[in-house]
Amino acid sequence: MALYVQKFGGTSVGSLERIEAVAERVAQTRAQGHDVVVVVSAMSGETNRLLGMAQQLDPDANRREMDVLVSTGEQVTIALLAIALTRRDCPAVSMTGDQVRIHTDSAHGKARITHIDTASLRSELGAGKVVVVAGFQGRDEHNAITTLGRGGSDTTAVAIAAALEADECQIFTDVDGVYTTDPRIEPKARRLATITFEEMLEMASLGAKVLQIRSVEFAGKYRVPLRVLSSFIDGEGTLITYGGERMEAPLVSGIAFNRNEASLTILGVPDRPTVAAQILGPISDANIDVDMIVQNTLGDGSADFTFTVNRDDYRRARALLEQTASDLGAACVQGNGEIAKVSIVGVGMWNHPGVARTMFKVLGEEGINMQLISTSEIKISVVIDEKYLELAVRSLHGAFGLDQAPSEQPLGNNP
Amino acid sequence: MALYVQKFGGTSVGSLERIEAVAERVAQTRAQGHDVVVVVSAMSGETNRLLGMAQQLDPDANRREMDVLVSTGEQVTIALLAIALTRRDCPAVSMTGDQVRIHTDSAHGKARITHIDTASLRSELGAGKVVVVAGFQGRDEHNAITTLGRGGSDTTAVAIAAALEADECQIFTDVDGVYTTDPRIEPKARRLATITFEEMLEMASLGAKVLQIRSVEFAGKYRVPLRVLSSFIDGEGTLITYGGERMEAPLVSGIAFNRNEASLTILGVPDRPTVAAQILGPISDANIDVDMIVQNTLGDGSADFTFTVNRDDYRRARALLEQTASDLGAACVQGNGEIAKVSIVGVGMWNHPGVARTMFKVLGEEGINMQLISTSEIKISVVIDEKYLELAVRSLHGAFGLDQAPSEQPLGNNP
Repeated sequence: MALYVQKFGGTSVGSLERIEAVAERVAQTRAQGHDVVVVVSAMSGETNRLLGMAQQLDPDANRREMDVLVSTGEQVTIALLAIALTRRDCPAVSMTGDQVRIHTDSAHGKARITHIDTASLRSELGAGKVVVVAGFQGRDEHNAITTLGRGGSDTTAVAIAAALEADECQIFTDVDGVYTTDPRIEPKARRLATITFEEMLEMASLGAKVLQIRSVEFAGKYRVPLRVLSSFIDGEGTLITYGGERMEAPLVSGIAFNRNEASLTILGVPDRPTVAAQILGPISDANIDVDMIVQNTLGDGSADFTFTVNRDDYRRARALLEQTASDLGAACVQGNGEIAKVSIVGVGMWNHPGVARTMFKVLGEEGINMQLISTSEIKISVVIDEKYLELAVRSLHGAFGLDQAPSEQPLGNNP
Repeated sequence: MALYVQKFGGTSVGSLERIEAVAERVAQTRAQGHDVVVVVSAMSGETNRLLGMAQQLDPDANRREMDVLVSTGEQVTIALLAIALTRRDCPAVSMTGDQVRIHTDSAHGKARITHIDTASLRSELGAGKVVVVAGFQGRDEHNAITTLGRGGSDTTAVAIAAALEADECQIFTDVDGVYTTDPRIEPKARRLATITFEEMLEMASLGAKVLQIRSVEFAGKYRVPLRVLSSFIDGEGTLITYGGERMEAPLVSGIAFNRNEASLTILGVPDRPTVAAQILGPISDANIDVDMIVQNTLGDGSADFTFTVNRDDYRRARALLEQTASDLGAACVQGNGEIAKVSIVGVGMWNHPGVARTMFKVLGEEGINMQLISTSEIKISVVIDEKYLELAVRSLHGAFGLDQAPSEQPLGNNP
């Protein structure tokens, strides 16, 4: 008898037929004697429909109220799924984020879970019920409804799995696992049977759509066994593993990329130690995440400062930066909303300095200019013109031997 | 500086344009310096859309989960209206039934409000905000979401007005007041400037769609000044008044009717004192409201027992009655889902026995058979074949002089 947390995303519950299919799968797991908590997203299209209405009323709609609005999407799904389960004689009860008591901070639209009370969940599980929880939502200390941001249902699932010490957190999605890169761009991409936590973290942070980064962070923090698998096709999916370095492993496990980036440059700021904080302070205060940061010192006592943000935050970030430029007496602000980030990821690369050289050589031979470069022990990211994205991904996928199946050691496997 | 509770129904918030119009009207009231609590329904069509989805999954869907589902409709509206108000620089905050703390019993789908905590409401009003409250919903003692049943947003508005001791509870709707009867059936129907609480109660209970009966009961219990007016047309509407009998008044103030009725008859039950309780007990336990009740004692020690229920409850009530018939050894169960109830209402009729005679004579002359009759001090109701409904309403409207404007004393006015 195990306890599983099963999460189904928007596509998996995108119609009444699909909700029936999810109910069928959950009821089967329950019939095998396991306890099940199901976490669901809004039906696909619903969140955008709701956001669209708000946008029509006010393009800069009040964020607290946006959360009140969009959180209804998941509430509809939990009710429908609980109804479909009950119909199958599988006792079920729905719970909103508030009813579970998923406490978050007050950053509306991108709130973070602070803690989860498990008493209600345990009580319903103890009564033999499948608990159907609304993903993506919580309450802050003022009792306001909050949402965790896009993809936040994954985070909800992982956080609940951690809080309940579940045996496995299963993320059902429209792909059947984690691939070496996006198969829509490189048809030769292959599914990984396992991937290390560190690699998955980089893949997620770099825009691989399989899992939301915060859910991977959460999973790692509590070492929640996490499996990504398909709602539609039977299969083992990809298991995320923890601990231990691999004895032997390919240099690079996958190619990740992210189109949803924008870069901002402030030219001619004074070259002094406090300037970075002055530039990024207002951005951070506005709860805008900054990704890559580069500062070029010029010879004349001034510097150019570049950073990237999520494209959704581009307009807000640019407005804040114009103000900062004026305060600092900077020359001007430039921005580019048509960039993409491409990254190679692999725990094997940290002691192979040749990896970076190979990457830059491959891109250079294709005539792709690298605007920004950032490295870590297990990834190298470059920002390029968005139009070269597909070319870059395919070239790197081939150059690092990801087109071929691994010979013995499965990629990302732990010994 | 007054405190108004303004309630806008589904048609009044049925599109983004209409939500903008509501925001405009509320912002105007606020700009005049008044405190405002707004109570809103789901956008028209939304509740039916949600119910339709649940029905497809399970025609007898779990009632707890139905409430989780349909309560999202109002939550969408409060967010959108709060966004539209904020856009107009009118500070506003939305609150769900849970956030207000509208406590109810656990009768899902037709819950009753037990009490309302006013601390949160007063705090937000004190901060100068318009509070936008989701109508129709609350929470029970188990923290489950409940709904008050169709039209329950009126009840929410009145209950909040009572709890806050508001100066007036204004129900904005798609009609501009209470009429002598439904103008769609009798074009000569006239708007009443005022109506007594007792008359309004009967009108509402008899299916006049202007106000939900429970909201009228609530209003009367706490003597909440209640005004019905149009969302679309400027006007004074109809004010519901309390206390005092009228010195001079027309015998009949209005003709009410209700199509949404069904009758059930159980034939050949034992004629003993406990039989009514045995028949109605299971119906009441199932939370089905029974309206008119008639028992005909036959000469042979048996009796026929007839009652009417809401047509929505017909199927469930019939199933229960079949069981009771089997238990009691009754001859059989008959039902009729195509009946209508027509009533004449007026505080002036109680000491005029001729009113009943006139009513029966008018209907008899039109060849309309009365299947059931029930009377109170201020109303007489008859159940007839649904197909005669329009004819009955028009005949009675003319016969009691409602086609003409009142000479001096406004109808339903208190001295």
